[in-house]
Amino acid sequence: MKNNQFAIRPTDFDTQIQELQNLHFLTSNNEMMNDPIDLYTDLLRLSLLKAKSKAAFEQKLSTYMATPDQDALEYLKSNDELSVQAFYNIALQLLEFNPDVDFSFEDPLAAMKKIQLKIADHEGNVFTINELKSAWYWLLATHNKNGQTFIDSLAANGYFLPFYGEIGEPLLFNGKSMPVFNPHKLIREVVYVESPQDTDNDGKLDLLKAEILRPAETEDGLKVPVLYTASPYNQGTNDETGEKIMHNVNIPLEHKEPNNLKYEDIEYKAPDKKLPEPRTVTGQDEVAEETFAREQSYTLNDYFLARGFAVVYAAGIGTKDSDGVRTTGDPEETTSTVSIIEWLAGNRRAFTNKVDNIEIKAWWSNKSVGMTGRSYLGTLATAAATSGVEGLKTVISEAAISSWYDYYRDGGLVIAPGGFPGEDADVLAEETFSRRLQPGDFHKIKPLWDKKLKEITNGQDRTTGDYNTFWDARNYHKDFKNIKADVLMVHGLNDWNVKPRNVERLWNGIRHNGVTQKIILHQGQHIYINAFRSVDYTDIVNLWLTHELLGIDNQAEKIIPDVLIQDNVKPETWNSYEDWSNDDNPKIKYNLSSDKLSTVDRTSEKLTFSDQLDDSLFNRYKNHNDEWQRDLADLDNDKMSKHRLLFTTNNIEETVIDGKVNVNLNVASSQNMGMLSFQLIDYGNAKRFKVSPALLAHNGLAETYDWREDDLREFKLGSETNYKMITKGHINLQNRENTYRVSDLEPNKFYQISVELQPTFYRIPEGHKLGLIVYATDFGMTIRGNQDIEYSIQTGESNLLVPIHK
Amino acid sequence: MKNNQFAIRPTDFDTQIQELQNLHFLTSNNEMMNDPIDLYTDLLRLSLLKAKSKAAFEQKLSTYMATPDQDALEYLKSNDELSVQAFYNIALQLLEFNPDVDFSFEDPLAAMKKIQLKIADHEGNVFTINELKSAWYWLLATHNKNGQTFIDSLAANGYFLPFYGEIGEPLLFNGKSMPVFNPHKLIREVVYVESPQDTDNDGKLDLLKAEILRPAETEDGLKVPVLYTASPYNQGTNDETGEKIMHNVNIPLEHKEPNNLKYEDIEYKAPDKKLPEPRTVTGQDEVAEETFAREQSYTLNDYFLARGFAVVYAAGIGTKDSDGVRTTGDPEETTSTVSIIEWLAGNRRAFTNKVDNIEIKAWWSNKSVGMTGRSYLGTLATAAATSGVEGLKTVISEAAISSWYDYYRDGGLVIAPGGFPGEDADVLAEETFSRRLQPGDFHKIKPLWDKKLKEITNGQDRTTGDYNTFWDARNYHKDFKNIKADVLMVHGLNDWNVKPRNVERLWNGIRHNGVTQKIILHQGQHIYINAFRSVDYTDIVNLWLTHELLGIDNQAEKIIPDVLIQDNVKPETWNSYEDWSNDDNPKIKYNLSSDKLSTVDRTSEKLTFSDQLDDSLFNRYKNHNDEWQRDLADLDNDKMSKHRLLFTTNNIEETVIDGKVNVNLNVASSQNMGMLSFQLIDYGNAKRFKVSPALLAHNGLAETYDWREDDLREFKLGSETNYKMITKGHINLQNRENTYRVSDLEPNKFYQISVELQPTFYRIPEGHKLGLIVYATDFGMTIRGNQDIEYSIQTGESNLLVPIHK
Repeated sequence: MKNNQFAIRPTDFDTQIQELQNLHFLTSNNEMMNDPIDLYTDLLRLSLLKAKSKAAFEQKLSTYMATPDQDALEYLKSNDELSVQAFYNIALQLLEFNPDVDFSFEDPLAAMKKIQLKIADHEGNVFTINELKSAWYWLLATHNKNGQTFIDSLAANGYFLPFYGEIGEPLLFNGKSMPVFNPHKLIREVVYVESPQDTDNDGKLDLLKAEILRPAETEDGLKVPVLYTASPYNQGTNDETGEKIMHNVNIPLEHKEPNNLKYEDIEYKAPDKKLPEPRTVTGQDEVAEETFAREQSYTLNDYFLARGFAVVYAAGIGTKDSDGVRTTGDPEETTSTVSIIEWLAGNRRAFTNKVDNIEIKAWWSNKSVGMTGRSYLGTLATAAATSGVEGLKTVISEAAISSWYDYYRDGGLVIAPGGFPGEDADVLAEETFSRRLQPGDFHKIKPLWDKKLKEITNGQDRTTGDYNTFWDARNYHKDFKNIKADVLMVHGLNDWNVKPRNVERLWNGIRHNGVTQKIILHQGQHIYINAFRSVDYTDIVNLWLTHELLGIDNQAEKIIPDVLIQDNVKPETWNSYEDWSNDDNPKIKYNLSSDKLSTVDRTSEKLTFSDQLDDSLFNRYKNHNDEWQRDLADLDNDKMSKHRLLFTTNNIEETVIDGKVNVNLNVASSQNMGMLSFQLIDYGNAKRFKVSPALLAHNGLAETYDWREDDLREFKLGSETNYKMITKGHINLQNRENTYRVSDLEPNKFYQISVELQPTFYRIPEGHKLGLIVYATDFGMTIRGNQDIEYSIQTGESNLLVPIHK
Repeated sequence: MKNNQFAIRPTDFDTQIQELQNLHFLTSNNEMMNDPIDLYTDLLRLSLLKAKSKAAFEQKLSTYMATPDQDALEYLKSNDELSVQAFYNIALQLLEFNPDVDFSFEDPLAAMKKIQLKIADHEGNVFTINELKSAWYWLLATHNKNGQTFIDSLAANGYFLPFYGEIGEPLLFNGKSMPVFNPHKLIREVVYVESPQDTDNDGKLDLLKAEILRPAETEDGLKVPVLYTASPYNQGTNDETGEKIMHNVNIPLEHKEPNNLKYEDIEYKAPDKKLPEPRTVTGQDEVAEETFAREQSYTLNDYFLARGFAVVYAAGIGTKDSDGVRTTGDPEETTSTVSIIEWLAGNRRAFTNKVDNIEIKAWWSNKSVGMTGRSYLGTLATAAATSGVEGLKTVISEAAISSWYDYYRDGGLVIAPGGFPGEDADVLAEETFSRRLQPGDFHKIKPLWDKKLKEITNGQDRTTGDYNTFWDARNYHKDFKNIKADVLMVHGLNDWNVKPRNVERLWNGIRHNGVTQKIILHQGQHIYINAFRSVDYTDIVNLWLTHELLGIDNQAEKIIPDVLIQDNVKPETWNSYEDWSNDDNPKIKYNLSSDKLSTVDRTSEKLTFSDQLDDSLFNRYKNHNDEWQRDLADLDNDKMSKHRLLFTTNNIEETVIDGKVNVNLNVASSQNMGMLSFQLIDYGNAKRFKVSPALLAHNGLAETYDWREDDLREFKLGSETNYKMITKGHINLQNRENTYRVSDLEPNKFYQISVELQPTFYRIPEGHKLGLIVYATDFGMTIRGNQDIEYSIQTGESNLLVPIHK
């Protein structure tokens, strides 16, 4: 097994000593010790937290081996010198590695190297007293077998309990903040922020509920930064009523009337709407009137709650206890999201309840805000960043949408988020409209909500799938230029819900903003990665936020790689790179030659396939998208061979695709409408990662004593498979120019199209083949009309452009 | 949806009032109120815990509807009388039911009836003051939509925080103990119990580690009962080294030499072994020297930690921090398990550490112990009960083994626990031998352990599969007569890991012991059921343990049904019965007639099948047991049709099988050895429960404020299937007489055999067919030799006996 740590901060010896003192590992008791054996014994005593007596300590000590023949108690009692071997034998056991599996007592350093654990400097085979201190320092910063640093595992065992209430400010170790704030003394309070909008048209500015958790120490004057998660889900969801309005996807594609639209014709412009006057403040309070027992939390936020950060959850307009209506990502929702930050930064009012107009300030806030959360949550973080709002220092945008068109549409087609055919902006609005969950409140707003929901349904326009004013209002690209916050992006390269284009546009869209930008790409789908064993994501975020929000100069911006990508071939392998999807990457051009992809040959040939399946197969695929996918890509299965074109290379050298693959085709449809889909495939027998990470330990991860836990997980290889889809793309043949301009399509006439597939980073191992599948109906994503349409391509004027990692 | 509550205690009005006072719902403030509107408003104020001011309370109140047109605030302010309708409209919202889905404000009582919620007595359409008090009482005891009582949901929201530290003893409500003890003040300590055994032959009695969690109030004199979980897993497991010694199951069945054994020949007799002297006590202490941060806990125990119970975890001989070696269920392990109880009851010594011989007593224990846990844990609870040890008042034995032969063997065959082919007693011993996890300790005991493990491998005898002295030592049936503790059994009717015979033998084996015995049979496999939405299992256990361990006369023994069975047809349906698998149940005898099961016809005919498959199919099935099972039972698939005999009834009336089905066959093998397997099948198209319960809410279940949470789950129907296996069985044809007597088998000679299938309780819906499959190799459970053996049966002398629920 291998660990991968990217958040270890290079630290000079004097600082190491200072930090060991701050953490009470070096004490007035042991600091003057000259004998490494004595000091190591004392450090172990401080770490074997279960033992509360000398006898119990020695009993524990004797359960560790120091050499192949001596246990730690015997060793420390009988030796004058501390060998590097003995130190690391014991250290590996402290890190929970297993001598039956992970290392041998004969050569612990070999295992340290293999597992990629940091070995401290040492001149000889025995540690000097200073070498020992330094080795202990690095040991504390090293990840154990179960996904956390040794110091965090000590924290989970109660190491920092004596610090609770004794320390008035964050305690740093190796650039990261330690859990010295008692999470069971958190203050939980609710305020209502007055937002500059009136989305429910009641003549009053919308009041938005915010749930705050802050350390008790703020009552004594500590000012803390805020992790703010804007989550439309976190006051509850309407799963049943949302399900009811899911759209039928078993409908035919229709011809669209050509238009001559220019961007100016569909550009969104903010309406000139007069806002109600702000409420008149009738008093001030520093104490909230409302509390809560259990927020719907993100475990990464939980981790920071003991480390001197406040956490704020707000669900925004149209959610339970707030005013307004849901709008699914439009500028009103951005305003709603931003208003909480404005309050936290002292630039907006909040009230203790919704009727008395008594103001309450965020007097405990240090006015530095970072946003966290995945999917819609990360989307709103991105949206807030595009406002350039004061106080927002950083956003961690995980699996985030950067343009809602890229979530629900593609290339002039309705394209479902993977796994959710029939979902759309209106369904999401209904699902998150949690005001419905309070019947007394919902009763008053029901007619307005019915109307607003209809407006969304009309605006999203499932009939054409075109980009329009509705989608332009929900495109954050337009305001990337305003982003002033540093951005840490996280995305799954196999995320077919929020597809990778969303993060690629953000990554490439803020290159010139002058902000620090980092990106982490993993092999997962639409998941969180803060409880993975093989990478120190939580530490990375700690280093990052300690820098961004606590204002500590810990060099996070230099230490954290700009681009960190999980390898798709080797387990437990994360590589750092300088860039991703750079437009300057070299490209390989593959010609289409019969059923081949070739850099040399080219044929000019007309190839044709029909999209129509016989009824029984069509019905089968409708209900079993996985079987359709298997048959589509299968080289040996005839079921789909007449309903697709498939091109493969010969066996190739190892190739790393980096960025946006382009398909250029000369294509005709047998009717006056048509759509094409594309999949890029890695063909070759190999054990590949399973779709979801494996559970290593239920509730196995805790970094704080007696506090919330997370499931420890890791990607593991499954049984051998013969292919893997790398990326895909879609286009409506009438949207050849762009997504809002509709062109005519004459039956059987050939047109040139160019389609950008979803960006990726993918290592094709040596000896595999690269494949391209051209097909029409995508059972998991497009509408499914099973129409009698034939598609033809002219191979001579078609090619595939694959960007390669430099 | 439907709730099912079996732990509601009938309570008279005066007691209701007393309990409402004890819980501070009726206070000096509101007790004298005569106006139901005023009192209901006050009760709501006490329950809407988020609101800390009048304004916030009224704001919350206005989010509930009281009638189809009025919210609760308007209603309570504008009405003189409290209608039953308004009470239950608000109540249903407090219980988190959803008016869009679950009920209508026009007729809340209709929904209450449908969901099976208790409606309080009322004379008219409006509540009198006393009717209201009673209605509030019952509301508190009623389950909400999310698997917990209203009072427990209030507890999770902090209702009992003011009780923390203010109350010196358990607080009861409706016969159950409330969470009034602060779980973050628990005292966690470790002691070492001196057990009367020396399983590692070191000349000293084995010391066994026990982890104790007890309420802080015990320091002030409170004596508490103990939930004791004996879990060999809970100090860690050796997954890798266990995996290494898994046995090969792809080996042929072999002829066994006939024997003439009588039970006396193989009976286990305890060896006459001289024990070392007990340690000499050198001192006394009341304070432990060792603590721990996070035990490997069972969520059901977690629930009781705030309710005035201590919890003790011990892993027993051969586990981390304890002495001894693993023995997999023999009398030494029972002794190890029991010794902890003896200490808790004041009848055995424990020490503060393993070297100083300083005694520590369980001075905080009320000497009433109950055991909990599933699988191996429940097994040890059963084992402990068979000792009749003083202090053990009850065991809750979940999915427990009652004879290890019935776990790893059947009918003279090696039969794997479902899903674990190749596992055996030695593998389990190695996996749980967590002394290995402490290299310093393991180093000293390695040679002995290697020897002991070999003894287990020899003793279990995979060659014959016969019952022998090794298994007789691990058969708890022999000591059922000693059980004095009340027993609550829980088992999955689809548990093919610990098969249902284990619980059936216990259920029927203690009928005459004079103890209270209860059984709950669910539709799951090998799972816990304490976080299911549709049944109040946790409440049942609370009622039970409050009675058994707190000594409260709450009529638990009368209120809890003797037999509670989850229906296999209707979701969310749990039925109570008087008995299960009673030998007096009537039986239907089906004759075997060609391919039919018939109560009328009978043919005399020889039917034959071959066990041997072609190599490719055999290899496929070895790696895909699920495909083998599907093909075996499939009526339309020819792959297995030559390798099994299949008999079905005509369409039948609804039939409920209750107990042990018997197959009587006249059978011959083409060789001098042979084995047969049997499956009883329900044939008919129906939506059936999925194999595993669905996750309703991750961490969705909490019954205590700011404390550990559980995932809320429920069985849901999957898509339609055409069959379901009801039960199965196996026999080695040389074990016709019993499992230790081996008879000769002449090739092609017919013998009469009788096989008892695993006991069950199963409703076959009207119009389905009952099927019997006779086959040999069971890919999931038997060895797999793919031998050229033909089996023949004479139908005329064969039949199927099916016990029917009276």
